[in-house]
Amino acid sequence: MKNHLNKLKEGKSLMINKKYTIGVDYGTQSGRAVLVEVATGKEIATAVKIYPHGVMDEYLPDGKTKLKQDFALQHPQDYLDVLAETIPEVIKEAKINPEDVIGIGIDFTACTMLPTDSKGKPLCFYDEYKANPHSYVKLWKHHAAQDEANRLNKIAEERGEDFLKLYGGKISSEWLIPKIWQILNEAPDIYESADRFMEATDWVVYQLTGVERRNSCTAGYKAIWNKQNGYPSKEFFKALDPRLENLVEDKLSTDIYPIGAKAGEITEKAAALTGLLVGTAVAIGNVDAHVSVPALGMTEAGKMLMIMGTSTCHVMLGTEEKIVPGMCGVVEDGIIPGLLGYEAGQSCVGDHFEWFVENCVPATYTREAEERGLDIHVLLTEKAQKLAVGESGLVALDWWNGNRSVLVDVDLTGMILGCTLLTKPEEIYRALIEATAYGTRKIIETFEENGVPIEELYAAGGIAEKNKFMMQIYSDVTNMEIRISASSQTPALGSAIFASVVAGKDKGGYDSIVEAAKYMGKVKEEFYKPIPKNVEVYTKLYDEYNILHDYFGRGANDVMKRLKTIKAQAK
Amino acid sequence: MKNHLNKLKEGKSLMINKKYTIGVDYGTQSGRAVLVEVATGKEIATAVKIYPHGVMDEYLPDGKTKLKQDFALQHPQDYLDVLAETIPEVIKEAKINPEDVIGIGIDFTACTMLPTDSKGKPLCFYDEYKANPHSYVKLWKHHAAQDEANRLNKIAEERGEDFLKLYGGKISSEWLIPKIWQILNEAPDIYESADRFMEATDWVVYQLTGVERRNSCTAGYKAIWNKQNGYPSKEFFKALDPRLENLVEDKLSTDIYPIGAKAGEITEKAAALTGLLVGTAVAIGNVDAHVSVPALGMTEAGKMLMIMGTSTCHVMLGTEEKIVPGMCGVVEDGIIPGLLGYEAGQSCVGDHFEWFVENCVPATYTREAEERGLDIHVLLTEKAQKLAVGESGLVALDWWNGNRSVLVDVDLTGMILGCTLLTKPEEIYRALIEATAYGTRKIIETFEENGVPIEELYAAGGIAEKNKFMMQIYSDVTNMEIRISASSQTPALGSAIFASVVAGKDKGGYDSIVEAAKYMGKVKEEFYKPIPKNVEVYTKLYDEYNILHDYFGRGANDVMKRLKTIKAQAK
Repeated sequence: MKNHLNKLKEGKSLMINKKYTIGVDYGTQSGRAVLVEVATGKEIATAVKIYPHGVMDEYLPDGKTKLKQDFALQHPQDYLDVLAETIPEVIKEAKINPEDVIGIGIDFTACTMLPTDSKGKPLCFYDEYKANPHSYVKLWKHHAAQDEANRLNKIAEERGEDFLKLYGGKISSEWLIPKIWQILNEAPDIYESADRFMEATDWVVYQLTGVERRNSCTAGYKAIWNKQNGYPSKEFFKALDPRLENLVEDKLSTDIYPIGAKAGEITEKAAALTGLLVGTAVAIGNVDAHVSVPALGMTEAGKMLMIMGTSTCHVMLGTEEKIVPGMCGVVEDGIIPGLLGYEAGQSCVGDHFEWFVENCVPATYTREAEERGLDIHVLLTEKAQKLAVGESGLVALDWWNGNRSVLVDVDLTGMILGCTLLTKPEEIYRALIEATAYGTRKIIETFEENGVPIEELYAAGGIAEKNKFMMQIYSDVTNMEIRISASSQTPALGSAIFASVVAGKDKGGYDSIVEAAKYMGKVKEEFYKPIPKNVEVYTKLYDEYNILHDYFGRGANDVMKRLKTIKAQAK
Repeated sequence: MKNHLNKLKEGKSLMINKKYTIGVDYGTQSGRAVLVEVATGKEIATAVKIYPHGVMDEYLPDGKTKLKQDFALQHPQDYLDVLAETIPEVIKEAKINPEDVIGIGIDFTACTMLPTDSKGKPLCFYDEYKANPHSYVKLWKHHAAQDEANRLNKIAEERGEDFLKLYGGKISSEWLIPKIWQILNEAPDIYESADRFMEATDWVVYQLTGVERRNSCTAGYKAIWNKQNGYPSKEFFKALDPRLENLVEDKLSTDIYPIGAKAGEITEKAAALTGLLVGTAVAIGNVDAHVSVPALGMTEAGKMLMIMGTSTCHVMLGTEEKIVPGMCGVVEDGIIPGLLGYEAGQSCVGDHFEWFVENCVPATYTREAEERGLDIHVLLTEKAQKLAVGESGLVALDWWNGNRSVLVDVDLTGMILGCTLLTKPEEIYRALIEATAYGTRKIIETFEENGVPIEELYAAGGIAEKNKFMMQIYSDVTNMEIRISASSQTPALGSAIFASVVAGKDKGGYDSIVEAAKYMGKVKEEFYKPIPKNVEVYTKLYDEYNILHDYFGRGANDVMKRLKTIKAQAK
């Protein structure tokens, strides 16, 4: 802040003619544009567009082509609609001149991918393909390529492929190659006709700039690309399926641009669509979690950001490539250029509490919440926070949706232990919260034990912003201070920050992400400090979690997997 | 039945002048008398009296003397009121002549005990003692003598007392000696003034007959008495507390009468109270669970009866005294004269489901049950029985209230494993039911492994009578047929059966319990048969239960105990 004031005192022109950037954040249900003041990071205007087609998981837009189980598709036209509506709206709302918008950045869920022709036209825009589900966007949570992922992992393991260790030993069914392979298997004509399989974030950037620029973040985290080694070998792809042998050369871009680079400038067509001026700088596409890092002012190694929502994504910065067992990925330039970006995650955080509220909260509590006009989570929190640490006698394993990091095992399941006839709903609720905090501590410890030190903890997302009770538990369990994003649109702010870098200093932006993040990134003044007496008890409870984590997670007792087998046979 | 018809054909007098006996069953909240036809076991009339003082766990009857935590007292006057009201009522309702009532039997919860003077007058009937909680009846579930029980077990273990192995290694705080010791510690004047500490069942029999006759069942199962070795030694009692050295000689009856023996006859005073004739035979006092055995026609070794309610009590018959790890007790003549009676138990059965319904059933289910006019258990059962065996992927340990048998450890707690975001309330409900069935199978296997074969399975109590879904699960899990008591007043019927034996053949009764049980005991025609395909899956699930049972219950991971310690410190 001091630097910033100095800068203001220096009488730079930005006081006279303020400059802005726009960040556009594409989520699962909607896209949102945020117009940000470059000098301060202040969010001037926000506009949200709900996707007209939403998430297609039952039918195609024709309303009659039924989708198979675990499909989750989107329509690329929705992404264009977001640009066409939200950008003019924020400019209008902010009452500024479009020429003062010096840059735009895009972030997206990932891996969200689509097949296009050689000009970037989505295959689903063609009449001859639009009845085929595989011509549409496959959303990150399209889970129908699990068979392909399983086979890919098996083959990679048999071949001793080195890349596996960069992804905690497993490639997820959510990622690019399994999704492409599924297209080949189920719709070989779509596979054949596709000139490109693109990340949606790159596709939107392409629509703005007229040039294709693949970003290092999704290439690295979702497409098995590595700065040193590139994509997996032809031999590997051939081992998957002879028809995939030339996938990389034929259908993937091999020009990978680091996060923070400039993708290009707004074309005439894009200017017509968005109301931005031709020539406005456009940043390389990014991913919602990763783009958030500079939005909290984080640009150095040793810092971890938790993006906490239905699930939690942990992104952190390091100076060296280390192999951390069970991480989601490590990518050079994947988050901040010049640093190694690490990713880890927990599959079930907010979802955990939603499950609890839908399935386990008694009518007496629901009634009390209604009578007092409280959200049920508020009531449960009120009751849960009256409990002393350890008072419930409960400990849970947070694997209701499998384990994404450290163990990387979707077949693990949830457990709760310590129940008595006096156990109350709020005690279980609290135990589930604590379990997710233990899971985070386990991830932190695993990184530290493997040479990636984590000295500072940050959080963003709905839970971080709203749930003080939970954040204090995280601080107590990890024994670390936790700083919270000051923005409620953290990813969009992050995209706007990158936009200010690619616009450059001459245009009123910044020279580097470090500088931009310093002025535009922000955390709340209030932060969470561990309470020593809680830390003491949580350390004991975490020890118990850890024993159970290893007992059930590392093969001593594979009961969870055996139960899943029995379950599958029962159905 | 054939024998019975033959008997009827022989033209015995019982057709002309039917004979009856009365069984009086003293429960936790009320007492009930059932008048039974001796020839057939047909229940002619029933009367229930709710105890005016109920369970006193907050205040004495004066309404101002506050009781300490875990106290559960009763007033002996309530027991007399039961006799005075229910016996005349059943005679009247049956429209019979009291002279045709040839015997009466009493059964009770146990250990339910009280201090009396040398004439059997309860100390709480004295003005000088009635303000002292320790002068009242301590109900079976009075749990305030846990400290005494812990110390007793420690000392017994240190001294290598042989009797421990007859009780699965542990004396419960619910039993006689800890309760007496608590009186000595907290009210030495009451201890001093008491000439006798009596089981309530013996006390009621005393009121009817004017003579004190201690029964072998409560002496054996609840007072550490053994037919060969008697009570523990003076040295042992002295080691507990020098003032207890002469407890046995001074304050306990050492004349122990086997179950099935005659205690005496109705006195003039008792005749005035009950309307029975002077001289009517009275059976030795008995315990509700144990007295139920002949009510199902069970009088032979190799049979186990489960009395299933809030908790389950397993009683079974054997021909030899075997040491079974973790049984509740083995007593010669304790159930059927001439046989060894074994007892085991599960602390949390119906209570388990009540806990679930109160704490874990969502409002949507409660509403559906209301709208359809269903009890919530009926709704949950309806949903749960649609599931295939193993479909939930869940397995639970039924230790919400500790483990009473096999492990004998109150500090064990409940666990559920296999939860996912798709886990539904009915799946958890079913998993809890299954867990109690696994617990029963574990008890059966433990007995069999230790030389007490169990060839036939029987059940009585509210759950056995009403819950077909649960009983089928028990049959499938144990892979045994299960026969159900045909009486909804099984203990009272059992008492009436013993009454017919002590009345004797000359009076129109029977010569032996075997004969009486054959004519008067009864099971429903319908019984449960294991379904082979369910048995197959349950065998796999039980294997998982077993692994977890031993892992958490036998010291490999004492997390449950450590959590209890942390919990105690947190409070």
